[in-house]
Amino acid sequence: MKNQSAADLAAVATLLQIGTELGLDHVLEPGNPFTIASAAEAAGIPKAGVAAYVETLAAAGLVVPTDDAGVFCASPDFAERRHEAGYLAWALTANSPLVENAREFMFDRAGSARVHPRDGRRVAVSSRWIGERTFYPAVLNRTRASGASRIVDLGAGAGGLLIQALQQDPSRTGVAVDISASACSAARTAAARAGVAERMEVVERPIESLIDDPDPIKGADVITACFVLHDIVQNDALCEAVLRQCRDALPPGGAMVVADAVSFAGGEDERRFSALFTYLHAAFMEIFLPSEKEWLEKFRAAGFRHVESHAEILPGGRLFVAVR
Amino acid sequence: MKNQSAADLAAVATLLQIGTELGLDHVLEPGNPFTIASAAEAAGIPKAGVAAYVETLAAAGLVVPTDDAGVFCASPDFAERRHEAGYLAWALTANSPLVENAREFMFDRAGSARVHPRDGRRVAVSSRWIGERTFYPAVLNRTRASGASRIVDLGAGAGGLLIQALQQDPSRTGVAVDISASACSAARTAAARAGVAERMEVVERPIESLIDDPDPIKGADVITACFVLHDIVQNDALCEAVLRQCRDALPPGGAMVVADAVSFAGGEDERRFSALFTYLHAAFMEIFLPSEKEWLEKFRAAGFRHVESHAEILPGGRLFVAVR
Repeated sequence: MKNQSAADLAAVATLLQIGTELGLDHVLEPGNPFTIASAAEAAGIPKAGVAAYVETLAAAGLVVPTDDAGVFCASPDFAERRHEAGYLAWALTANSPLVENAREFMFDRAGSARVHPRDGRRVAVSSRWIGERTFYPAVLNRTRASGASRIVDLGAGAGGLLIQALQQDPSRTGVAVDISASACSAARTAAARAGVAERMEVVERPIESLIDDPDPIKGADVITACFVLHDIVQNDALCEAVLRQCRDALPPGGAMVVADAVSFAGGEDERRFSALFTYLHAAFMEIFLPSEKEWLEKFRAAGFRHVESHAEILPGGRLFVAVR
Repeated sequence: MKNQSAADLAAVATLLQIGTELGLDHVLEPGNPFTIASAAEAAGIPKAGVAAYVETLAAAGLVVPTDDAGVFCASPDFAERRHEAGYLAWALTANSPLVENAREFMFDRAGSARVHPRDGRRVAVSSRWIGERTFYPAVLNRTRASGASRIVDLGAGAGGLLIQALQQDPSRTGVAVDISASACSAARTAAARAGVAERMEVVERPIESLIDDPDPIKGADVITACFVLHDIVQNDALCEAVLRQCRDALPPGGAMVVADAVSFAGGEDERRFSALFTYLHAAFMEIFLPSEKEWLEKFRAAGFRHVESHAEILPGGRLFVAVR
């Protein structure tokens, strides 16, 4: 049974990864009925190819026909299956340039990193599949509880989390900050699709730039940052300067809500994924993750008054809440 | 819990895939104690890199320290974890040139297939991880039961199955036939390592070549063929001619023992993986798999007297036994 389950997970993840490569992500959303023709048009690909792909999804139980002839929609368990697929898509596909060139990286890390970069879109999509059912709800619960009216999301990627936060409350505004032009462009498109474009600003910037120009975080009640701070954590002074700017931008009682990874988490349910995450960052990206205690210390060193952490957001991840 | 399990499987598969990319396959065999230095020497990679990798495997529970300081070995459940990893490694890594270029394939299948070929080594390694605990035992049971003294394995890859068959009985001889030069070279190395080199011939050949020159199958009591006949099944005349040559080479009572995939198998435990397997072959390789009934018919049409099939060798696969 366990082997069948590994085969099932592998098959579902591969089929959904093919779907995103084909440009069918937005068609394959739960609650979105579609036809072969509408899917082909949305993705800009041939109808015959879409028909073969959708027939396969139906055989795998990932889409189901509706009562209307020729109209399909995602299966009732689609969101859960896609969540599981996220771990496989991130580990094996988003990281494939690293995994498949592991030997080369071992002899020349920096040179290999230049020649074999990860694809930002694949990283963002698989991270969203994982995040939507793990750290997104944890972060959104915190922002809802805080009553924040202006939220800035650092490393916002395609904007998924911030859009959900804006949808929680129609009076909220927000800023999505991301270093990647393609992520920012995807965030603008997604905001328009979700009807929150006029409340969401998108700023293409590395988070380090907040040190010299904190304009994007001005007026924020809550600053969120999911799996982005570990990119700057190597450089103590830089990291502290960014965190300090965030603290200074917040009002008293305002908070940073941060989801990020810790080094080699030891829980039985998380040790394997955490080992992979820690190793990939260290061996391939020269990013050495802090322990949970070291993360807490960084927020305190930046002047936050109250700092706490929570486990069980996803394997190897922790939710940090740092209050000014 | 299920999500944790997807994360676990993703992590283990990615770590083991990195191991094979690093050249550590033979070091990471159950029952093979190793040190950082011996592993680094075997793979020809730097010791510091091996140390970081092995530390990660230990954190993930895939290797354990032995009573001798500095000596590690694979964990007791390593073979089972590697088997599960096989499905992920095959689906997402061995097929990554197809998956990651799915959109391009949809517009120009033949052109894309030339530019984005799969890596034969990755296909062979992941297939072995799957096969060792599924169709290998099923095929080996049949060859053992038949009392065969000479076995020819078509599409033998790195020779794993044939080597096990030769190890079952020291009086047996065998021939490994494979189209791939690198697979044949790996088979020779593996045969030497297993101490069966003088009983195992390796022939670099496409199986179609048996039609004009059946020399490699002469004298065989059993001809095995695992997941290779589907490569020629498109061409009815060609397939029948190959099967007929095999029948003619066998003595009365001799058999072909074939593991292969059927189109869209419907069992609840196999439908997802079978859907992926069927779709990948059709959409990316223009191979349209036969149904179980069509497979049986092909063996009968080639003149085999008794033909039977068995399910549950692996998701979407069937074991066919065709007796002359």
